[in-house]
Amino acid sequence: MLNTIVVTTALPSGFHSYVTNVGVKDSSQDFTVVASDRPCAASGVFTQSRFAGPSVVISRSHVANLAAQAVVVISKNANVATGAEGTRNAEEIARSVAARLGLNEQDVLIASTGVIGRQYPIENIRTGIAGLPSPLPDNDAEEIARGIMTTDTVHKIASATVAGSSARIVGVAKGVGMIEPNMATLIAMVFTDAAIEPQLLDTTFRSVIIRTLNCVSVDTDTSTSDTAIILANGAAGSVDIAAFETALHEVLLHLTKSIARDGEGAETLIEVLVDNARDTEQAKTVAKAIVNSPLVKTAVHGADPNWGRVAMAVGKCSQYTDIDQEKVVIRFGTQEVYPTQVNESGLAQLSEYMRGADVIIHVSLATGTASATVWGCDLTDGYVRINADYTT
Amino acid sequence: MLNTIVVTTALPSGFHSYVTNVGVKDSSQDFTVVASDRPCAASGVFTQSRFAGPSVVISRSHVANLAAQAVVVISKNANVATGAEGTRNAEEIARSVAARLGLNEQDVLIASTGVIGRQYPIENIRTGIAGLPSPLPDNDAEEIARGIMTTDTVHKIASATVAGSSARIVGVAKGVGMIEPNMATLIAMVFTDAAIEPQLLDTTFRSVIIRTLNCVSVDTDTSTSDTAIILANGAAGSVDIAAFETALHEVLLHLTKSIARDGEGAETLIEVLVDNARDTEQAKTVAKAIVNSPLVKTAVHGADPNWGRVAMAVGKCSQYTDIDQEKVVIRFGTQEVYPTQVNESGLAQLSEYMRGADVIIHVSLATGTASATVWGCDLTDGYVRINADYTT
Repeated sequence: MLNTIVVTTALPSGFHSYVTNVGVKDSSQDFTVVASDRPCAASGVFTQSRFAGPSVVISRSHVANLAAQAVVVISKNANVATGAEGTRNAEEIARSVAARLGLNEQDVLIASTGVIGRQYPIENIRTGIAGLPSPLPDNDAEEIARGIMTTDTVHKIASATVAGSSARIVGVAKGVGMIEPNMATLIAMVFTDAAIEPQLLDTTFRSVIIRTLNCVSVDTDTSTSDTAIILANGAAGSVDIAAFETALHEVLLHLTKSIARDGEGAETLIEVLVDNARDTEQAKTVAKAIVNSPLVKTAVHGADPNWGRVAMAVGKCSQYTDIDQEKVVIRFGTQEVYPTQVNESGLAQLSEYMRGADVIIHVSLATGTASATVWGCDLTDGYVRINADYTT
Repeated sequence: MLNTIVVTTALPSGFHSYVTNVGVKDSSQDFTVVASDRPCAASGVFTQSRFAGPSVVISRSHVANLAAQAVVVISKNANVATGAEGTRNAEEIARSVAARLGLNEQDVLIASTGVIGRQYPIENIRTGIAGLPSPLPDNDAEEIARGIMTTDTVHKIASATVAGSSARIVGVAKGVGMIEPNMATLIAMVFTDAAIEPQLLDTTFRSVIIRTLNCVSVDTDTSTSDTAIILANGAAGSVDIAAFETALHEVLLHLTKSIARDGEGAETLIEVLVDNARDTEQAKTVAKAIVNSPLVKTAVHGADPNWGRVAMAVGKCSQYTDIDQEKVVIRFGTQEVYPTQVNESGLAQLSEYMRGADVIIHVSLATGTASATVWGCDLTDGYVRINADYTT
């Protein structure tokens, strides 16, 4: 799937961007604005956190009418748990960016990412907005992907064309830690020039997210700032919705795997497929239990084909009394390791396999016919160092 | 509480023990038998894992009548996911130990701990049982606590006397990883010479476990072998049940904290108190979310008073829509950090505090009057190394 993607960094027709540094934390890019030259059908999916920040609250309300035309992203400061002052600042930023671009405040979305519990350096941001060129001069998605990074080690971008049309879909995302989206997601922005009826765009976006961004976990910790936004400006005309969903799935799947692969300290992408399950919910719950198990994650890091830890992770889903340990089948890649066990040389080969960049753990539950796939990463000394040394 | 405990290593009256090496894995102690010279009221609490091993299945059935007289523990091999052969072996061990001690097979409990997915070296164990002295020659609880260790770095033992009686309670436990008991617990054995009616012993044991062993988590992974057993042989006569429960709570709380403090790679004990909650279930769920958050655990490891991560962990309990971020109060020790924030020098003092052996995180939810306390530990490079290098 991945290698079929042609990554191009140009935004779809009618979208323009500007990325700069306004001094949020240091001298790196921290202020990103993307706008369409015409109104867009829009959809947004946000964190369910009880500590959601003002950016999430404002964007959720601005996109409720499934229409928007611009998005501003501030990185290096999440503006979360900042009280009334934090809310006033976020509202001012959306309002003044809208004014600079000649848009209705309601049509500007805002996302923030970075440290929690710090106020914005609002004076610096005011100065930055005052200097915002209008119309926006650029259309480089890679610059956007870089502009929204915090501790990401690589920028995350994907694009696809919609079959049977000239429409393109370009997506960018950020996120390496505090990643376990829960009916929500991290920061991802998708832009397309396809013409899609708003309600259909919303339904399609949510159904694809459930199979992609909502299936990734780096560390079981759900961000307070998770935000995924799609803007469709229609510049390329109408498209076949099935072809659009296929292309959108390709883009979001690529971003999802990029996030897992770049998890804090990660050296290995872990893909867990659970099939023959009672229903999708059971398959996804068991798959998450495996991909989130620190003992499974460290075993993968140690290239140790310790299938007993996978059995443990399945076993701890004790709410599923229909799971019978005599009927479960566990595989690393395509190699069955339980109940049929491999000999010493087989284990050595598996250890070789687990030294690769991608490890697939495949569990068949024998409780039904449903399946789910989730993505995560190994747990390394690097994760501990990054998060123990990160200073507030 | 802890310093009021007088740790004595003698078993209560009427209990005898034998600890030896029978060659389960290496030359360290791996075979432990404890028996009473008279029948005991007994209770057992076991893992809910769907991959529970034969030892758990057999002990659950043997203790169902709330009576038992001996327990055998095999360490260095969990005998889990070993199929019919594993079940036959566990049954043979219980049967032959019972025969050596002249007991009814039904009155012998068995527990195993160690690697998953390996058959016992049954011939070695047979030889060991054939050499089992009867009656058992020793009564040293410390020897038992050492005999059941696997990767534990310290043995775990606690004892207390029941006020107003000569009765004593002696408890031992093991466990450093794969620790998140779920209405069950790790391996713990409690022996008392108090005379307690079986049903009352069972009720008391379970109610105390809910507040102690079921409130510890090292790594969110629930063991397939979790077993907690109490034997009361009545040798010291009857006791006041309230005094007994107090003493039992003291013993199990000490063991619980010992387990958290000795978590794999752990350098700091984390105690999380959540109060002003809607009910105990909400308090415990939020407390577990905090103590299990890898970002909170690494912050503690880095002595970083990063209260934003505690806010994140509270926030991800999104099922509790009654939690209002404006009303939550977060403290490290007794120092409030949210919403009232501390200045730079205050943060420096908190960092000092977090370098201590124990860190208390106190969150008040303002949703009610219930509370819960849970225990865990920091996440260190040591945890990763231990579990990445551990070879199957």
